[in-house]
Amino acid sequence: MSELDEDTAVSPVAEGMWQADVGSRWNVGSAPNGGYLLAIAARAVLATTGRPDPLSVTAHYVSPPEPGPLQVAVETVRSGRRYATATAALRQGEREAVRVLAAVGDLAAMQGPTRVAAEAPTVPGPSGCVEPPDGGWVPEVARRYDLRLVPAAGDPPPDRPYEVSGWIRLADGAPPSVLALLAFADAFPPAVLGPLDVGWVPTIELTVHVRARPAPGWVLGRFATRFLVDGLLEEDGELWGEDGRLLAESRQLALVMPRR
Amino acid sequence: MSELDEDTAVSPVAEGMWQADVGSRWNVGSAPNGGYLLAIAARAVLATTGRPDPLSVTAHYVSPPEPGPLQVAVETVRSGRRYATATAALRQGEREAVRVLAAVGDLAAMQGPTRVAAEAPTVPGPSGCVEPPDGGWVPEVARRYDLRLVPAAGDPPPDRPYEVSGWIRLADGAPPSVLALLAFADAFPPAVLGPLDVGWVPTIELTVHVRARPAPGWVLGRFATRFLVDGLLEEDGELWGEDGRLLAESRQLALVMPRR
Repeated sequence: MSELDEDTAVSPVAEGMWQADVGSRWNVGSAPNGGYLLAIAARAVLATTGRPDPLSVTAHYVSPPEPGPLQVAVETVRSGRRYATATAALRQGEREAVRVLAAVGDLAAMQGPTRVAAEAPTVPGPSGCVEPPDGGWVPEVARRYDLRLVPAAGDPPPDRPYEVSGWIRLADGAPPSVLALLAFADAFPPAVLGPLDVGWVPTIELTVHVRARPAPGWVLGRFATRFLVDGLLEEDGELWGEDGRLLAESRQLALVMPRR
Repeated sequence: MSELDEDTAVSPVAEGMWQADVGSRWNVGSAPNGGYLLAIAARAVLATTGRPDPLSVTAHYVSPPEPGPLQVAVETVRSGRRYATATAALRQGEREAVRVLAAVGDLAAMQGPTRVAAEAPTVPGPSGCVEPPDGGWVPEVARRYDLRLVPAAGDPPPDRPYEVSGWIRLADGAPPSVLALLAFADAFPPAVLGPLDVGWVPTIELTVHVRARPAPGWVLGRFATRFLVDGLLEEDGELWGEDGRLLAESRQLALVMPRR
């Protein structure tokens, strides 16, 4: 069983109520990574609805949970033929950590036209990329991933987005899953973190669309921020398979917090 | 009072419980437009939380409501200094129509760095654009907007996204508001609708980030679909002010339904 499978496991407590155990090995400082929490929430939604794939998952991060037991309350809003809609509330006692709203279904059963008008970014392979700079401090969650970043050629010119891209896989060698894609969507350093002198970039809201089940191998991620206004920014992400297929798109709204 | 203000009005029923009246003049066929419903939900969330601006609003459309009374149940998940997080459930009796998860705050009070690395698309002004083709049938909601589309130069080449862009304002002459931006984000014809022979494109999930309060005048919208896979598509939107400021970004996940 992979570290991610192990640390996102949910056990049934009652109808739509699950218990998870938040592992500290996904922490950034003292707070669990948001993508990891999103994977826990999605797992409880999939288990409740009996669907295999997250299609669209939105998380609002309201308060960082502690490592330890976490309750996940799932409410199925509607269960339809193609997909189900559900919410998940992640709580520790009375304290809510994350609220999620999701549509889940079966990507293998989708039928209809296909037309893709974009290609994976052209970047060096993993061996031509570099491990993230540790700056004397490596967050615990960084040890869960094998992450190779495309070397940045200095800060981008003013009319180009802040951008970070590179290859990612689970450090324990487990093949990627649809839940791993949710974690990967929040596993890269924020695109603004290199060029801007910021303390941290807490996510207000993160939405991930999973568009295909991943095949074994590396996943290529590209994340870009075009609009930073009064400390509020969006970060748009794409995750691609080694075969050039789009696996997921993500977008988050986040805050730039000054260095303390 | 504008048509939009009038038809999104919510009156208090109990703590966090509001009543709206869905007007049929926002219909597409027999179903109210999703952007209009999003504006109703956001209005109830703003009224409950006492915040002026939607920052990030996600709606999952589960069942089209009928014109008539609609109950909006708002739950405040967290009320923080910078923003509040809340859900809204739009229901007619036992039947839920839309579930919303939102962060709301005060755009004028945001503080922090600004860096914008994108410009509004270069398109002809409203007088150089055209009214949408009616194809013998104009949905009721189209009469609520003054919409001028950039003339399409035929179907895009295979490596270019499906795209629709143009100018929009409220048809009754009211200046745009942050709630109007939510409605505008779902007011253009789907980008796939011209080049593809499809019946309709129901939205599974729509997220709008409001990034600035609009000034009076036209709003420029651009909507593009890059990834249509097995009938599932994303549509990415941007709304810009006449002064070239980004007002909002949107993304939706939708289904292509064959023509009946």
